This record gives sequence, C-alpha cells and structure tokens, in this order.
Amino acid sequence: MLPNLAVVLVSPRNPLNIGAAARAMSNFGCFDLRLVNAYDVAYHEAKSAVKAGHILERSRVFDNVGAAVADCDLVVGTTSLDARAVEHPIRRLEFGGRLMRRHMTTSRAALLFGSEKFGLGNDDLSHCHWLMRIPTRQEHGSMNLGQSVAVCLYELIRSAAVARTAPESKQPANSEDLERITSLLMDVLGRSGYVHARVAGSTELKTRRLVRRMGLSAHDAEIWLGMLRQIGWKLSQCYPESE
Amino acid sequence: MLPNLAVVLVSPRNPLNIGAAARAMSNFGCFDLRLVNAYDVAYHEAKSAVKAGHILERSRVFDNVGAAVADCDLVVGTTSLDARAVEHPIRRLEFGGRLMRRHMTTSRAALLFGSEKFGLGNDDLSHCHWLMRIPTRQEHGSMNLGQSVAVCLYELIRSAAVARTAPESKQPANSEDLERITSLLMDVLGRSGYVHARVAGSTELKTRRLVRRMGLSAHDAEIWLGMLRQIGWKLSQCYPESE
Repeated sequence: MLPNLAVVLVSPRNPLNIGAAARAMSNFGCFDLRLVNAYDVAYHEAKSAVKAGHILERSRVFDNVGAAVADCDLVVGTTSLDARAVEHPIRRLEFGGRLMRRHMTTSRAALLFGSEKFGLGNDDLSHCHWLMRIPTRQEHGSMNLGQSVAVCLYELIRSAAVARTAPESKQPANSEDLERITSLLMDVLGRSGYVHARVAGSTELKTRRLVRRMGLSAHDAEIWLGMLRQIGWKLSQCYPESE
Repeated sequence: MLPNLAVVLVSPRNPLNIGAAARAMSNFGCFDLRLVNAYDVAYHEAKSAVKAGHILERSRVFDNVGAAVADCDLVVGTTSLDARAVEHPIRRLEFGGRLMRRHMTTSRAALLFGSEKFGLGNDDLSHCHWLMRIPTRQEHGSMNLGQSVAVCLYELIRSAAVARTAPESKQPANSEDLERITSLLMDVLGRSGYVHARVAGSTELKTRRLVRRMGLSAHDAEIWLGMLRQIGWKLSQCYPESE
C-alpha cells in the first residue's frame, strides 16, 4: 500500500492509458491520482470505461504541475532519457525507488509521468527534485504509459525482505517418509530384476540419494508412497520374492 | 537483457495486450515470444499495429504448452491467486525473480502468462515447476496482461547492486566553492542590513552551515556564485560598506 504517494499524469492523451494507470494504482494500493492538462475527452472516456473506476472517480484535475504537487515535499519526475543529466540528477528506478520508499515512511511524495508522445516538458521537470529512469534498453527506451506506472509502483511496494528469504509454502517431507519411499522403491526394483545381487548395497545407497534429491514435499511423499505400495503389491502377485 | 528467457502467452485474446507484451519485451531486452492457442485475429492485428514489431515478427505459435516450453528447463507460471498453493509452490515475484535470474545465468527459462479472463488453466499449470505471483492487493489482485509482463520483466532485469549504491550523476561542489559562496552571501547580507554587528560571528557560522546543507553540485555552485556576485555588485553601488 502506498498511502503517501500521489501519481500525477501530465497531459495524458489516451483514455486507455489513463485507465491502465488507474488500474495499476488499484493493484498496488495507491489511491491518489492527479491529472494536469488532461485531454478532456480522454479523461471522461477513461472514467466511464475501466475497472479501478473508484480511483478515477476520486482523481483530481489541476491547472498546472505546481498546483498538483503543492502538498508534496518530494517531487520525482520519470524520464526515458539518460541525457538530461545536466539539468537534473537522474536515478535508476532501483535506487530512486529506495529513496522514495524511505521518504514515504514519513512524508508525502509525488511521482510525475509525462504525455505519451513527449514525456515531461522542461517546465514540468523544473518542479521536480530529481528524475527517475526505468532501466530499459537504450535502443528502445520509451515505455507505454500504463506499463511504466505499473513498473514504478511495483518497485515502490516490492519487499527486499521477501527477495532474500521467501517462506516456502510447502511442508517438506521428513526423513522417515523419505526412508519409507527408499525401501519401497528398493523392493519394487528388486522384484523387477533391476538390482543385481552383487551390487545391491551400492544400489541402495544410490537409490537413497536419488530419493533425497527429489526435493519432495510431505504431500508429494504421500503420493509416491501410495504409488510405490500399489506397484509393489502388483509385482508381488507374480514375483513373491526379489530376484 | 534477457537472452535466456522465453515469454509464453497462453490463449491471449486482445491484440492490444499482445502488442503491449511485445513492447515491454523490447524495452527490457527479451526477444523470444511464443504464443499458444492465440486468437488468430488478435495475433494478426497485433502484428500489424504495434511498435516492437520485430518481436512479433519473430514470435512463434505452438499448439500446446508442452511444445512451447520443450527446450526450457525451468518453466514458471504466473498467477494472481494466493490460493492454488496446494497444487504448486507459489513464490512472490521478488523471490521467484531471484531464482529465475540465477537459473538464467546458465540455462533457458520460460515464463507463462494466461488469458486475460481466466489466467492459466490447470493443464497449463501442470507444465510449470512453480508459480510466481505479483504482490498486488488482495482486493484487486488481477493485473492487466501487458502490465504484468512489464512488471515481471522489470523484476528480472533489475539490479540489486544499483539499488544499494547509485552513482550520482552530479559532481558535488568542493569546499572552496562553498566557502566563496558563504563569503559572498555574508557580504550581500551585510550590505543589506541583515547582519547585526553584535551577532555577526554567529551569523557567519549559521550561514556557512546553511550553505553546506544546500547539497550543491559543482554546476549549481557556479550559478549561485554568479548570482551572488551580481547582487553584491548592485548593492555595492548604493551601499559601499556593510551596515
């Protein structure tokens, strides 16, 4: 959730993009959408068309960037260029996102997106403390508006802690189960004539390691036990003893 | 760049989404697009319409998921649900992305996206080693197809190193410049009558600290020096000495 963030679309022209921006905001829990110099028709078309409509309902229209960001104490512009460095510091999204996250723990921030064709103008940019760039390829740097909003918001809500250690949703199989699988499998292999008496000991070790490498969950271990029991029983009907 | 990744769209229906997926792939340097059971009309419409056309030109159509992922040794499905955990391990994008990145340093991986309406079906999912979930809000989990492709690819190319330490694009001002600014500012303040003789010493210390807190770049220090010199000169025409 991003309660301290305002997304500001400057001069958006395409209702699909306005709608897509609002939808990404809803996905990632940012509810403060502001528009500057929006093409009226597009704005109204977007309002009536898309999901995440409540974000568009609550959105506000401003005459200029200054008014739109007045209550925000950090203003960050987005750009696809690497070249405006002379005018403004440009930070890659990975790093800029971290700075914004830190800022937003206590204060409000605005994130500005320019028009589909021209991006943010120099006048819009002069309101920004710094700029942020999504690390796209140099040969095709310019992203679709709705997609860049989604990518930036994802960076702002992503959790570094989750990246380090994700709780596995699966309970792993315990050693007792793995050993039961090993011995059932050995029995099946024995009855099938796979195990040569001369190397039976080493085959058992190989089989035990093989079963450990399966990385079984407790749930899957149950399934394997059931399968092997059935196969073993069926084999035992014709082959009462290991070969 | 993502040379070891194939993006597989299963049953996409909307040409705009196919086009958006291809555009995000071009932005992030992934050139291997595969389609399974694509709605023909949508596919052809997308081909003729969008930028990133070369990715669509080179894209391949397969009859089923098995054929589409045959040459990949890691197959990851995307889902907006948290609930299918029983059938498959689900990893959040931050963690799953890390696993995929590691895998792709040496081997090929496929990332599957389901249809706009229904996502991936159980049959598609059975080809996956595990699933990945973009951490959207529970109340509005389902993302637009083009946007989820963009977010996943961004996670795959994002650099953890950049997040930790970004090189500042600006050369900071050196202490000599800061001291010149301080003394010019003191001179201007003196001539303006801002400095009371009794506290001149403490005002100078305050001013020096104030100037350090500006976080000036070398470039901006030049601008300030020019401004202050001009103001100082103009003031000196009427007020030859500090008050």
